[in-house]
Amino acid sequence: MAVEWLNEALRLAQQAADEDEVPVGAVIVWKDPAQGALKIVGRGYNRREQDDNPIAHAEIIAIQDAARTTGHWRLMDCVMYVTLEPCPMCLAACQQARLEAVYYGVSDPKGGALSLGYPLHQDTRINHRFKVEPCEPSNSECGAILKRFFQRKRD
Amino acid sequence: MAVEWLNEALRLAQQAADEDEVPVGAVIVWKDPAQGALKIVGRGYNRREQDDNPIAHAEIIAIQDAARTTGHWRLMDCVMYVTLEPCPMCLAACQQARLEAVYYGVSDPKGGALSLGYPLHQDTRINHRFKVEPCEPSNSECGAILKRFFQRKRD
Repeated sequence: MAVEWLNEALRLAQQAADEDEVPVGAVIVWKDPAQGALKIVGRGYNRREQDDNPIAHAEIIAIQDAARTTGHWRLMDCVMYVTLEPCPMCLAACQQARLEAVYYGVSDPKGGALSLGYPLHQDTRINHRFKVEPCEPSNSECGAILKRFFQRKRD
Repeated sequence: MAVEWLNEALRLAQQAADEDEVPVGAVIVWKDPAQGALKIVGRGYNRREQDDNPIAHAEIIAIQDAARTTGHWRLMDCVMYVTLEPCPMCLAACQQARLEAVYYGVSDPKGGALSLGYPLHQDTRINHRFKVEPCEPSNSECGAILKRFFQRKRD
């Protein structure tokens, strides 16, 4: 299933690129504890420029979308698939939202929370801890779509 | 002027308390570089429960309000006054918004980004750095309003 969710996040990243935004996309999947069924409850893609909103990253929009869909700010039994490693703001937002896990498509050495050494998700002093890992199997398109976007900007 | 801005943030925190939300308030002040004038461009108070939104902290709402007011996601020449030390999500959001400084009313030993040892605002690898300091003069009401709120919840 991971392939399917990451592909949907990639489709959202492409939508961002089409709207001239840095192409990052995210989906939130809810695992119904009773039925074991999985379904997407939140979607987001980066909209910072067009919304003139400094926090309008894909993850933030997906979290708010999932909170609206589920009617709860605690996104229990929910997992995020995002094309790019979350920045510190987004990792902390996932923690605020009580996500169970975050799986990302490609690392962000310059801006990712883990890459920069801010492992908030493992901090035992904070009242929620969760898994943050590269998505398996990986999909090289998560990084390629970003490279194409910045190459086009430079040209 | 710091007294005035922190008082306005406290007024917003009281509004949160009146609406049965953890009482934290924030204002964003813009310093007009041409005229030197100061004015409030963003206001926010914690609305997490009533909005069922895990990221609806005072600082996040104030940032989005200021971005709408100014029409720019980069809040250049803007300073935040907030009653409580920002959590890691909010500190990182202030960095995303390019705030010039954040002054807070009272430390948060259990949840504050500085208190927990996440000094994102000083990280030279991140493309924006800014000042984060306790507000001078301090106002003991910033902490007292929180104590009263949690005391009432326990009773």
